[in-house]
Amino acid sequence: MRIDILTLFPEMFSALNSSIIGKAVEKGILEINVVDIREYSTDPHKKCDDYPFGGGVGMVMTPQPVYDCIQAVDPDHKAKRIYMSPKGKILKTALVSEMAKNNDRLVILCGHYEGVDQRALDLCIDEEISIGDYVLTGGELAAMVLTDALARYVPEVLHSAESTDEESFSQGLLEYPQYTRPREFKGISVPDVLLKGNHADIVDWRNEEAIKITVKNRPDMLED
Amino acid sequence: MRIDILTLFPEMFSALNSSIIGKAVEKGILEINVVDIREYSTDPHKKCDDYPFGGGVGMVMTPQPVYDCIQAVDPDHKAKRIYMSPKGKILKTALVSEMAKNNDRLVILCGHYEGVDQRALDLCIDEEISIGDYVLTGGELAAMVLTDALARYVPEVLHSAESTDEESFSQGLLEYPQYTRPREFKGISVPDVLLKGNHADIVDWRNEEAIKITVKNRPDMLED
Repeated sequence: MRIDILTLFPEMFSALNSSIIGKAVEKGILEINVVDIREYSTDPHKKCDDYPFGGGVGMVMTPQPVYDCIQAVDPDHKAKRIYMSPKGKILKTALVSEMAKNNDRLVILCGHYEGVDQRALDLCIDEEISIGDYVLTGGELAAMVLTDALARYVPEVLHSAESTDEESFSQGLLEYPQYTRPREFKGISVPDVLLKGNHADIVDWRNEEAIKITVKNRPDMLED
Repeated sequence: MRIDILTLFPEMFSALNSSIIGKAVEKGILEINVVDIREYSTDPHKKCDDYPFGGGVGMVMTPQPVYDCIQAVDPDHKAKRIYMSPKGKILKTALVSEMAKNNDRLVILCGHYEGVDQRALDLCIDEEISIGDYVLTGGELAAMVLTDALARYVPEVLHSAESTDEESFSQGLLEYPQYTRPREFKGISVPDVLLKGNHADIVDWRNEEAIKITVKNRPDMLED
């Protein structure tokens, strides 16, 4: 999968060099190109924002640099083009896995300040996606969240022993609690069932715990 | 506000040095300390993870380094201690503003791999928070999202002219589209009403557009 990320703050994306995503990029399993929108500004001072028409606080990203940047990166519109925005469709596991399955190229546009001129969005963007019902100072962290969530579904990115099947949300429940060594920590033991090695009992216990935590923290997940 | 972020991947947090958050830290309005959990491991090889009891894929973070790191950073439990986890309470604007109002110190623990030994969480953590119904390779991006969303509510972080009142979610609607210069771009004009300068008409138009986009993208927001 190839992901082009368009942003006014390219330096923020060094966060993607770490851990699992960084290794996948190194191995060539995943291609992430971070593109500086400012380089496409035709303004003599490389300006990329201006005051909103009709008044209001903050600045709005002008359409020209965004439009020209997208055309340069994806001239034949072969990629699915996404704009990260609190106005978009809410990201959920089902949407992540569908996007990962159906697209081998994505362009992700990050807005900043009060957003992007609507004409650039109307002309260039296929879908607006929101990572949740809260507002961020820009779309950069949201783009990294989407990239990270998607990357987990790209074949070979996770270790072969891992999988996206047995985790929170994929079976409609939150995940059961995890325990590792030592057997006793600050006077608290690992639950007996996990130490006895009876696989069926462990499966039952984990399922019960998953239901308990879902009822406690996310009863809404059981209503659907 | 002071935020201590506990992680095995401290280098990822350079993303917070940019833009609005970076400036707030520079000015001393916001204090962000990124703490490397690995430094607190008593293991001779600074190991911080081990296999899960009861079997299963992946590794689990051991309780000792997490516990000792939290005790070192917040010995008297003066901070609200949060664990970023897909099992947690879902982050929303109302929770962000409540947290920003009620806490001047936060500790945010980032899990990685298959999570943290449950005993460390039971002993140390006040609240588990999830940024959305999707799974990430670690809690680091989630911690940055929470930090960014919270920072916007810290006085003086946003420019004085900006505000958190007139944006997506704060009034139960998504935000209206924004337009800036030029007046015409690729043959598409800025809507007339925004150019005419009648403030009441602009308010009406923006409200209508906000309702339209909410109906289209997030009808669920209108049901409550």
